[in-house]
Amino acid sequence: MPMVNIRVTREGVTAEQKQALIAGATQLLVDVLGKNPATTFVIIDEVETDNWGVAGQSVTALRAQAGDMQK
Amino acid sequence: MPMVNIRVTREGVTAEQKQALIAGATQLLVDVLGKNPATTFVIIDEVETDNWGVAGQSVTALRAQAGDMQK
Amino acid sequence: MPMVNIRVTREGVTAEQKQALIAGATQLLVDVLGKNPATTFVIIDEVETDNWGVAGQSVTALRAQAGDMQK
Amino acid sequence: MPMVNIRVTREGVTAEQKQALIAGATQLLVDVLGKNPATTFVIIDEVETDNWGVAGQSVTALRAQAGDMQK
Amino acid sequence: MPMVNIRVTREGVTAEQKQALIAGATQLLVDVLGKNPATTFVIIDEVETDNWGVAGQSVTALRAQAGDMQK
Amino acid sequence: MPMVNIRVTREGVTAEQKQALIAGATQLLVDVLGKNPATTFVIIDEVETDNWGVAGQSVTALRAQAGDMQK
Repeated sequence: MPMVNIRVTREGVTAEQKQALIAGATQLLVDVLGKNPATTFVIIDEVETDNWGVAGQSVTALRAQAGDMQK
Repeated sequence: MPMVNIRVTREGVTAEQKQALIAGATQLLVDVLGKNPATTFVIIDEVETDNWGVAGQSVTALRAQAGDMQK
Repeated sequence: MPMVNIRVTREGVTAEQKQALIAGATQLLVDVLGKNPATTFVIIDEVETDNWGVAGQSVTALRAQAGDMQK
Repeated sequence: MPMVNIRVTREGVTAEQKQALIAGATQLLVDVLGKNPATTFVIIDEVETDNWGVAGQSVTALRAQAGDMQK
Repeated sequence: MPMVNIRVTREGVTAEQKQALIAGATQLLVDVLGKNPATTFVIIDEVETDNWGVAGQSVTALRAQAGDMQK
Repeated sequence: MPMVNIRVTREGVTAEQKQALIAGATQLLVDVLGKNPATTFVIIDEVETDNWGVAGQSVTALRAQAGDMQK
């Protein structure tokens, strides 16, 4: 009965992509640890780019810098 | 000085229900562990049904299936 | 299908107290939101007193100060 | 490669304040533990005042009480 | 630059299984959202069975009941 | 009344360093948002290097590679 929490920046993740993350994370726990998918939970948190920082800067600021391609 | 984090799907939880969750969780820590309510924190996270998965499917998909009653 | 995470300092919480926290938190979600207990998860994290800070000090330091009774 | 998660009530935190939290938390990990800022993540969660409880009451209720100044 | 947190009961997960969870979760974010693996973090929390509850009971209690096979 | 959660790898963080993290994170919230330090919580989680992954590998594996200096 595992719990997976995926945190990503809120940048247009679609319902289909969310479904793919849920299915994939659940299958991973089944494949690696033999967990029961029926009691495997996946929660996706989408975080505003102002609220996520890397290297001391918000992702909003990083995205604004020329040529930033990092996801 | 405990911390309680309650995560539920965002499906119309009212302010009164949130207040009841906060009061109940705080009282639980007082009753079971003798904690000081003044420094007991409760945080409720409401998660979109697209972003919560069980059994490899989003709750949105599960809700759409005929007769699903699970909360 | 809610998730409750209870974080407390690691100070001798017994298995019976943990069971009471699990039962009480689950019942709270049933009573307030009508959730299904079968898919309600409770996770208790016990945190070393060196690793928990309040008011800018570790709980270890706070406990060492004369007369501190705060839980 | 540390991870810092800051949770505050959603009460008008500005982009500049968020940037200051990100920069300050990153620098703290550099100064105290010699961590590499390039792989230090900071995530800020803003929580509705209805969803945050202290002393058994929501922050919304606490704020409504005369003279409450607590942040 | 996503963050994945996997929480499972502490029941003999091996270093190889942990490595497989890390590799699989990272690849999932690459495949579904095109994220950069170099800045994808995975954190696995192993939780004592006394500290994890389902259906109002600790996993320790559930495991002790005859015939329980649920993982 | 903010909450700060700092997650680092378990690699010999001393009680003094933990105290410095607690004091620094608390002061940051006071300085940037005017929060009350008395109700500011800091929780430090130390994560085994087998349980933390970056770039699809555990930190244990990364540390074992010649010349890795990354913290």
